[in-house]
Amino acid sequence: MRVKTTEYFDKIPGAPEPVSFEIKRRVSFNEVDIMGIAWYGQYAIYFEQAQTELGRRCGLSFNDFYVSGVRAPIVKFHIDYYQPLQLDEEFTVKASYLWSEGAKINIEYAIIKGDGSIATRGYTVQMFIDGKNNQPYIVSPEILENLRKRWKNGEFKCLK
Amino acid sequence: MRVKTTEYFDKIPGAPEPVSFEIKRRVSFNEVDIMGIAWYGQYAIYFEQAQTELGRRCGLSFNDFYVSGVRAPIVKFHIDYYQPLQLDEEFTVKASYLWSEGAKINIEYAIIKGDGSIATRGYTVQMFIDGKNNQPYIVSPEILENLRKRWKNGEFKCLK
Amino acid sequence: MRVKTTEYFDKIPGAPEPVSFEIKRRVSFNEVDIMGIAWYGQYAIYFEQAQTELGRRCGLSFNDFYVSGVRAPIVKFHIDYYQPLQLDEEFTVKASYLWSEGAKINIEYAIIKGDGSIATRGYTVQMFIDGKNNQPYIVSPEILENLRKRWKNGEFKCLK
Amino acid sequence: MRVKTTEYFDKIPGAPEPVSFEIKRRVSFNEVDIMGIAWYGQYAIYFEQAQTELGRRCGLSFNDFYVSGVRAPIVKFHIDYYQPLQLDEEFTVKASYLWSEGAKINIEYAIIKGDGSIATRGYTVQMFIDGKNNQPYIVSPEILENLRKRWKNGEFKCLK
Repeated sequence: MRVKTTEYFDKIPGAPEPVSFEIKRRVSFNEVDIMGIAWYGQYAIYFEQAQTELGRRCGLSFNDFYVSGVRAPIVKFHIDYYQPLQLDEEFTVKASYLWSEGAKINIEYAIIKGDGSIATRGYTVQMFIDGKNNQPYIVSPEILENLRKRWKNGEFKCLK
Repeated sequence: MRVKTTEYFDKIPGAPEPVSFEIKRRVSFNEVDIMGIAWYGQYAIYFEQAQTELGRRCGLSFNDFYVSGVRAPIVKFHIDYYQPLQLDEEFTVKASYLWSEGAKINIEYAIIKGDGSIATRGYTVQMFIDGKNNQPYIVSPEILENLRKRWKNGEFKCLK
Repeated sequence: MRVKTTEYFDKIPGAPEPVSFEIKRRVSFNEVDIMGIAWYGQYAIYFEQAQTELGRRCGLSFNDFYVSGVRAPIVKFHIDYYQPLQLDEEFTVKASYLWSEGAKINIEYAIIKGDGSIATRGYTVQMFIDGKNNQPYIVSPEILENLRKRWKNGEFKCLK
Repeated sequence: MRVKTTEYFDKIPGAPEPVSFEIKRRVSFNEVDIMGIAWYGQYAIYFEQAQTELGRRCGLSFNDFYVSGVRAPIVKFHIDYYQPLQLDEEFTVKASYLWSEGAKINIEYAIIKGDGSIATRGYTVQMFIDGKNNQPYIVSPEILENLRKRWKNGEFKCLK
């Protein structure tokens, strides 16, 4: 199957580069199905593990949002599966923040095999809810606006 | 959030109507996150449970494919989340085969709350692999072609 | 393998009979391992689903405890596996409250195959934590004491 | 709650020392319940991840058994929970083979918090099934007997 090379979101002229983080792991026994490959619903966990490590390094963890009174639920989730992952196979999960201007966070994911080929690509979109009144944010919350300023100035460096 | 009313796949003129099945269940304790709502990755299980019951009634279960030497991996998975599901909430999952003509199966899903509003919509696309040589099918396997004939003749009635 | 017929907890002379509830379900695709049988860690979900339905009918649901300011964490969990469950197999999960006198809840579980044989047995023990100060209860909380009075009087009838 | 210090299995006089391996990880978002602590059924995954790494280093992986025609299903699983694990908390999982002489594998597990205190202890017992005829082994399979010889001679060194 051909590997998709375009990204999922429109490119915004002059937007800063994506900010990424990668984790490495293996396919566990409990994650494979009767055919010995990672079950399709398992990938949400793979994506979330990379996204969590990215968020921790960038000031956008669940706890960072919680402390600033914001919830950031996922409203859209998509995966394209190109190649299966076998039991015990080692792979890399890359999660990348893509620049956007609305009241949302766009993240793209790629799962990369040991030979460098893409096994899976996908994305999530998160919106924002006020933790006190459960109302959606129309404009971006302060925690995100501050980040975007730093990002635009080239100061959005996530800790390695 | 506005509920999406269009379907995910192009409508084919003259195509037979979708074939659907619904299951009812509740949100279990182990399925909710720290906010007390179903975790976003959990929905693959909800979808699969409805799809399994649909497949069992229509002759397209995992075992039906297995016996005919075909594997049908999911190659695309998408969810739109409109409203959360709370711990212990009762809901309906509807899975529907949509008519298509290529070597693939398109299924749409909807999760419906007790008040009839849509919580979630999504879809999966499956392709076909030969169980013996792991090669993809270019044309639809026999098990699917037989079904399509019956479907077109209005004889694709799934057992309730 | 021989089916264990004794129970896990000491019998207390004069104790009221166990109170039980049963659910029926099938083994889902995502629950089986590479050998096509339910993965051993999956059984906590099977047990919890039966225990949740039992609790709902008996006034001991998560929400009943929550409203009365009590948390009831599991402190002990045990399973004996006698026979595997196959993909798609129908089975019954029975959860039973066993009478006890300390500040704890003892539940026994059995998974029963279509032919009536036992696939799995197990138990959980729950203790009580005060929701305000996170301190363990030395004596049973009121919600449990009230139940035990009704249980002893033969009035602990759970709704079917 | 007091930490249990005895082991789960009888000590056999003259038995070689346990062989252990430890992994480090964090509690992921999808693993916590509505109280923000790791759900009790999640621990089977924690145990299995440590057991898998132990098995890989010692020649007792799923694949090692598979190649030698043996299945090693878990027939007994037990956990004692002493302290909860919080969202994002770092912890260590230690899995240890204990010497035994029957046709079985006994493994003990401990989950250790950052301050060195024990969060959880547990064990699994595995038996052996012939992959061809599904009959249980009465005596230990060759793959295990070979290991025990090396273990007794102090040559059962698992790769770090």
